[in-house]
Amino acid sequence: MNMQNDLLLRAARGEQVERPPVWLMRQAGRILPEYRAVRAKLSGFVELVQTPEKACEVTIQPVDLLGVDAAIIFSDILVVPEAMGLPYELIEKQGPFFPETINRESDLQRLHTVEPEEDLKYVMDAIRLTKKELNGRVPLIGFAGAPWTIFCYMIEGKGSKAWAGARRMLWEEPEMARTLLTMITDATIVYLKAQIKAGVDLVQVFDSWAGILSRDLYMEFAMPCMKRICDEINEVPLTVFAKGGNHFLKDLATLNCDTIGLDWNIHPQTAREIVGNDKTLQGNLDPSVLYGSHDEIRKRTKEMLKHFGGQQHIANLGHGVYPDIDPEKVKTFIETVKEWK
Amino acid sequence: MNMQNDLLLRAARGEQVERPPVWLMRQAGRILPEYRAVRAKLSGFVELVQTPEKACEVTIQPVDLLGVDAAIIFSDILVVPEAMGLPYELIEKQGPFFPETINRESDLQRLHTVEPEEDLKYVMDAIRLTKKELNGRVPLIGFAGAPWTIFCYMIEGKGSKAWAGARRMLWEEPEMARTLLTMITDATIVYLKAQIKAGVDLVQVFDSWAGILSRDLYMEFAMPCMKRICDEINEVPLTVFAKGGNHFLKDLATLNCDTIGLDWNIHPQTAREIVGNDKTLQGNLDPSVLYGSHDEIRKRTKEMLKHFGGQQHIANLGHGVYPDIDPEKVKTFIETVKEWK
Repeated sequence: MNMQNDLLLRAARGEQVERPPVWLMRQAGRILPEYRAVRAKLSGFVELVQTPEKACEVTIQPVDLLGVDAAIIFSDILVVPEAMGLPYELIEKQGPFFPETINRESDLQRLHTVEPEEDLKYVMDAIRLTKKELNGRVPLIGFAGAPWTIFCYMIEGKGSKAWAGARRMLWEEPEMARTLLTMITDATIVYLKAQIKAGVDLVQVFDSWAGILSRDLYMEFAMPCMKRICDEINEVPLTVFAKGGNHFLKDLATLNCDTIGLDWNIHPQTAREIVGNDKTLQGNLDPSVLYGSHDEIRKRTKEMLKHFGGQQHIANLGHGVYPDIDPEKVKTFIETVKEWK
Repeated sequence: MNMQNDLLLRAARGEQVERPPVWLMRQAGRILPEYRAVRAKLSGFVELVQTPEKACEVTIQPVDLLGVDAAIIFSDILVVPEAMGLPYELIEKQGPFFPETINRESDLQRLHTVEPEEDLKYVMDAIRLTKKELNGRVPLIGFAGAPWTIFCYMIEGKGSKAWAGARRMLWEEPEMARTLLTMITDATIVYLKAQIKAGVDLVQVFDSWAGILSRDLYMEFAMPCMKRICDEINEVPLTVFAKGGNHFLKDLATLNCDTIGLDWNIHPQTAREIVGNDKTLQGNLDPSVLYGSHDEIRKRTKEMLKHFGGQQHIANLGHGVYPDIDPEKVKTFIETVKEWK
């Protein structure tokens, strides 16, 4: 099927584009009243994720309502630990919670390998349905959490600022940590491959808690997992986003990926100097700019676009859009990118 | 009074030292069973902070028990907003909570200027008592939160990952934000001056949430406050620690301070290149290293010391010591610094 708008794919492959493509992390979600209306009819987030028709509907909403250049399948990084044997709940205003966690070697026996078309069939169905409904209008992005980030949740069972328990495991039980990280990596690879088979056009790996690791620890424990994923996924372009990981950006640039996502704590030109010219960069407007006036949003977005230079760039925020942002402000961000020359 | 061990002060002033001084953020606290014993007899953390004899006792514990080269007065950065008119509670396992917060212009009327010898007399008494009890053995460090970090708590009322509400205020109500930041800065300056008058030998300003701000926002809102504090406090050496703020380290290096604290997300030599040769650097071992074996701790501590080079360096962790660290591991860290040549 011909892609009517393939800006994202061309930019990811480093090909010439008329203007940078634009999408937002968490574009399908609470910012849209239309999303909240769908969710209000269900028992909660997890039911929405597990109901392909509804997941498809909210995935496409930002394409119709905001005019982004890509859809990203509505799902959660925590479906992987769930598929491995550790179910989670999402507690309103608190975040994810795992009733059971991994604390000792014997806990690993509770985990099993992942068969995406069985354990995660609802994601695969949502992808197939979304591809059909999108009908080639824009590319569909698939995603997974990075093994380190998934490891954090599996050890600690809920959000944390310092993830000291997960880091403690790296020092006290390094072999067990490596075993678990390998199990997560295996699951992530088959999951991403299944998403690609189901139809996604690009995949992104989110290492949301990369920033808590020293470069030493990241290189020792997390990087080998990222390297395996990047080496084994070759069917579509791959984006690595290691939030807070600018202190090992030079190392990330050695990965066999196409695009590197950037948070807002680095200047685009600094990032380009560190990464070199072989990768596309994605990001990186401070998400709080969207609290500013429409004029401020236009000004800061244009500055960002100028610093990235127009090519090998996918415009995005430096993190997910905050749920209380006015959709009109999001539109101003998107339109500013679209009008930029 | 002669200081028997003035390594910290000499290192902070950039003078030649036999070896780097060493202390730890949160050295007086839950890592020590002796601290937990003192606290168990009181109603909680806030009573401990407000009882000078007890605050003095736990301040001196790490000098006696761990052998650090400095004491830091046992207190909390949130005593300043409390003194300004916003009381806080510390909820076990959750963190600080402010029943009232600042949401609109009229809320500012609830706040007042701070008279340290009245509103914060318990801190001043604790400092005087501790100076007497220390009897010149090691310097005593005073401290305050940076205005941006205090602002975050006054707006949001409790801990947050993204501090989106505080950042929203910067965009939507910039004049009100500036007014509040100025009020906090005024209070911080009189508070630090009072601590110095009461006897502290060095002061540290903790910008714990610096890392959530883009360089643009930090420069616009937070930096002018830091500049005023650094320009007005000249009586003793001053340390600025902006956690997560490595993306504006070059700017922090322009401040009129003596020492810059570093988190563990920057290589010591990179920091030295960025900061130049005019400042002492403090830090920056990954706190999770203390979960490692004694051998690992010695190895990683020696590497860090080598990278800092022995002069213009105050050895510390890159953040506060985690409460579940074995005190014997802390001692290994401290002894490794003391034995280093």
